[in-house]
Amino acid sequence: MAGEDRILAGGATRIDFQTDPSRYRHWKLSVEGEVATLTMDVDENGGLFEGYQLKLNSYDLGVDIELADAVQRLRFEHPGVKVVLLRSAKNRVFCAGANIRMLAGATHAHKVNFCKFTNETRNGLEDSSANSGQRFVAVINGTAAGGGYELALATDHIILADDGAAAVALPEVPLLAVLPGTGGLTRVVDKRKVRRDHADYFCTIEEGIKGKRAVAWRLVDEIVPNSKLEARVAERSQQFAAASKRNGAGKGIALSPLTRSFDDSGIRYGLVSVDINRTERIATISIQAPEQGPPADIDGLLERGASFWALQVARELDDAILHLRINELGIAMLVFKSHGARANVLGHDAFLEAHKAHWLVNEIRQYWKRVLKRIDVTSRTLVTLVEPGSCFAGTLAELVFAADRSYMLIGETQGDNRGSPAIELSAMNFGPYPMSHGLTRLQSRFQADPEDVARAAQRIGEALDAEAAEQLGLVTFALDDIDWDDEIRLFFEERASFSPDSLTGMEANLRFVGPETMESKIFSRLTAWQNWIFQRPNAVGETGALRRYGSGQKPQFDMTRV
Amino acid sequence: MAGEDRILAGGATRIDFQTDPSRYRHWKLSVEGEVATLTMDVDENGGLFEGYQLKLNSYDLGVDIELADAVQRLRFEHPGVKVVLLRSAKNRVFCAGANIRMLAGATHAHKVNFCKFTNETRNGLEDSSANSGQRFVAVINGTAAGGGYELALATDHIILADDGAAAVALPEVPLLAVLPGTGGLTRVVDKRKVRRDHADYFCTIEEGIKGKRAVAWRLVDEIVPNSKLEARVAERSQQFAAASKRNGAGKGIALSPLTRSFDDSGIRYGLVSVDINRTERIATISIQAPEQGPPADIDGLLERGASFWALQVARELDDAILHLRINELGIAMLVFKSHGARANVLGHDAFLEAHKAHWLVNEIRQYWKRVLKRIDVTSRTLVTLVEPGSCFAGTLAELVFAADRSYMLIGETQGDNRGSPAIELSAMNFGPYPMSHGLTRLQSRFQADPEDVARAAQRIGEALDAEAAEQLGLVTFALDDIDWDDEIRLFFEERASFSPDSLTGMEANLRFVGPETMESKIFSRLTAWQNWIFQRPNAVGETGALRRYGSGQKPQFDMTRV
Repeated sequence: MAGEDRILAGGATRIDFQTDPSRYRHWKLSVEGEVATLTMDVDENGGLFEGYQLKLNSYDLGVDIELADAVQRLRFEHPGVKVVLLRSAKNRVFCAGANIRMLAGATHAHKVNFCKFTNETRNGLEDSSANSGQRFVAVINGTAAGGGYELALATDHIILADDGAAAVALPEVPLLAVLPGTGGLTRVVDKRKVRRDHADYFCTIEEGIKGKRAVAWRLVDEIVPNSKLEARVAERSQQFAAASKRNGAGKGIALSPLTRSFDDSGIRYGLVSVDINRTERIATISIQAPEQGPPADIDGLLERGASFWALQVARELDDAILHLRINELGIAMLVFKSHGARANVLGHDAFLEAHKAHWLVNEIRQYWKRVLKRIDVTSRTLVTLVEPGSCFAGTLAELVFAADRSYMLIGETQGDNRGSPAIELSAMNFGPYPMSHGLTRLQSRFQADPEDVARAAQRIGEALDAEAAEQLGLVTFALDDIDWDDEIRLFFEERASFSPDSLTGMEANLRFVGPETMESKIFSRLTAWQNWIFQRPNAVGETGALRRYGSGQKPQFDMTRV
Repeated sequence: MAGEDRILAGGATRIDFQTDPSRYRHWKLSVEGEVATLTMDVDENGGLFEGYQLKLNSYDLGVDIELADAVQRLRFEHPGVKVVLLRSAKNRVFCAGANIRMLAGATHAHKVNFCKFTNETRNGLEDSSANSGQRFVAVINGTAAGGGYELALATDHIILADDGAAAVALPEVPLLAVLPGTGGLTRVVDKRKVRRDHADYFCTIEEGIKGKRAVAWRLVDEIVPNSKLEARVAERSQQFAAASKRNGAGKGIALSPLTRSFDDSGIRYGLVSVDINRTERIATISIQAPEQGPPADIDGLLERGASFWALQVARELDDAILHLRINELGIAMLVFKSHGARANVLGHDAFLEAHKAHWLVNEIRQYWKRVLKRIDVTSRTLVTLVEPGSCFAGTLAELVFAADRSYMLIGETQGDNRGSPAIELSAMNFGPYPMSHGLTRLQSRFQADPEDVARAAQRIGEALDAEAAEQLGLVTFALDDIDWDDEIRLFFEERASFSPDSLTGMEANLRFVGPETMESKIFSRLTAWQNWIFQRPNAVGETGALRRYGSGQKPQFDMTRV
């Protein structure tokens, strides 16, 4: 398949998820009082890879990394912003969606990772609206096609210019033989509740729908003549701002650049380190506990800003996961370790719980929720090792419950003076960090008997050794010093020998038990179908639609209906 | 890929879903009072295709067709049966699961269709338990591996022999690089509520789990020493029979052989006909209304037996759908038509509603539910045409609501004296036929405003012409005589030109809006992941695990984690 040797633009050697507004090439972020405007103005020549141009506000992963950054900064750096307008700087075009040439030349792994990240970004918009009171409004001045309309679908309110030309469209099926797979199919019927036969029609026409039918079919919220568009946008901004529950004010905190150093064996952040063993195909992610207690009060938190332990770890962990997902495709397992004083982790948890009404504390909690969700949908085996000196307490204990398997040492390691390890629970394990399907990790774990959740809650604040943790069902296996090394080694070797694809499918099914939400449906059902189609010759083969798009040649399909 | 030219055994030219106990090669069905025993005793040489042997009670589609037939007959022909024991006649083997050589040599389309049908069969066991009071007990006397354990997972109660050898296993990931995709992953965590990390361990070991751990981890309900096995089986049978709500007694009705004739242009059943147009890739399924009213009472129903209109149509439609799915892979669309007296359809609906407490009426209603569900998960575009002379009323109107698109004629067709068509609703559109995700088709359709369901219900018993039906939201498009032919033709041509894969993915997402159940998760999430894996070289490529299994050569994997 083409694209295996695609070259990153500008001589880059890896895809970097860190950016800031001064470096944006594709978006402009402006803030006026309670209203921010995010203007999409994609630089045709600013593609992440060589070999394609980003015409008509089409996007690649690089464009979406900037969007994700902007959405994140709006939450932390702009506590006063209550409404975010998504607009286009292009004439008569809102956004043409994912760039087709980029997709056509991308590896399967890049397609899948690209869709996963763009899904997370769009879920991030909805999360900000639901949990930070920042309402998003899409102002569609022209064509919003494919991923362009999918982006609008992630907002709270869609205004479509009524000028006889502006339209929304999901032309993936007729044009490209793939799905509107970045949430489009799901949001059309589950969020906007478009009738399913109307959705069928809409998703099989190239030209999209405009005007009154777009409103009648619930595809947009309102149509407005161009002459009245700015006035209406101002009116809606005011309305949504007035209804917002966002309670921040004044200055936010700066998300200053992460301190990172990469080398061939891994990454060193300030509090997180990643050790990469390419022979064993393992990345070990170690998290350091705070060296001090939490600040005394909110002023102390604001003073620490981005170096507040819980925020810094979340940012470093998020960056590490994203890096490993897309730049280290041969890694089979993420192994989580931690070290330092449990008491300091729990001190920070207590601070996060005591001040949860404060806007910044809320943002930090919401961010941890999103980082943990990012881990949940990461297609690598997740393992947590609870060893002497570790500090899997409260928020960090979620990494034990997020893991596909966890191992905990019984007693001490000979010659190690750090004593036997313990897990400690806090309020943070019982609500603030739900998974994408709405359950906490402990609720997911204990669905057989919800009483087990209550039993665990009764032990909050207790240092639970391996036997206690195993008895409560908090870890997969408790092993003693004699077995530890061999058991872990054998497990790693065996796991690394399995087909990566079957592990991805297995883990995606076992991690999300019980109920589904729109978000989990997007990651499981819709994504799985899209991934299937991204393997099918009708889309990606030599004569497939994705490969032949724009070539002047019609695609040739195998018409077998599967 | 291999298998494209695989030859059906015994000179067969198509796969036939009709059978009866006298023709079973793989199962024995015996009935003693309230307890039936279904004994699996697969004939190694009885494979559906040439080229493999069905060793160790492994199965192919032919084996499952017999199982589905037996389960169906237990419901209609054995109203007194309250408990069904699933057993093996092989020594120390319960069932080795789907036959690997069969899978390895099967086309992608056959793999997908095979899994879909076996899923439907397993859901059928659960449906019988939930809605007909027939409880299923798996008696595992040896190895229940892969699909063998998945079959047991579909029962209500799993008894495992405690003899140091009998075990349950899901070795697909380590052995074959595919998933336990016939509900296994989902049922383990969602039905049996095995803890997700235990499930992870269980699904990555080849040898399975036996003895006390199998019970402790909830994989089976009990373990019993061989010496006490028969006594325990008898005891459980008695218990479950005593608790059953099955209210039938005496003689059932015989599911006599369907009257069918196949030719190149289609199939003629008694009440259903299928016209196949291979050029346009359309199969038109026409259903005839009853020529008479319903029987006066239950005795009359019993007298009509399998020729009772609603039952006969359900059986014929079921067979037609299954035939088209697997034997006519080039067909892109199923077009539903009907003809005859609406009043007679509604008369039968009224009978089904008035006598719903009777066991046989319940079975007929439950069967219609299953046939409609089979249509919902059929990967062909579903279209319903409401034309003059049609009788889409009540039960048959569900075919309008199951369709991806429906078209209804406004007024009359020139020169046609059958008048303008009408749709008529009955109680059957408001409850008895839920989709796999738990909503009725009208609830799914009207999720934007549940009041629309109530508005439709107020019009029960009214002949709704095209304008009324469109205004109520019951059809996609109402067209007049001038536009009808062109619009329909253009739609058919366009639809047939799209990539079949993208249509399958799109339809699978749009048909099931809103909530999910275990059943819908199996068909959407799990199936989609399995289909993806069934395309991946690590499973099906020349060096993939499925192809190399049993060859003595180890599979070679691309270790990129996607």
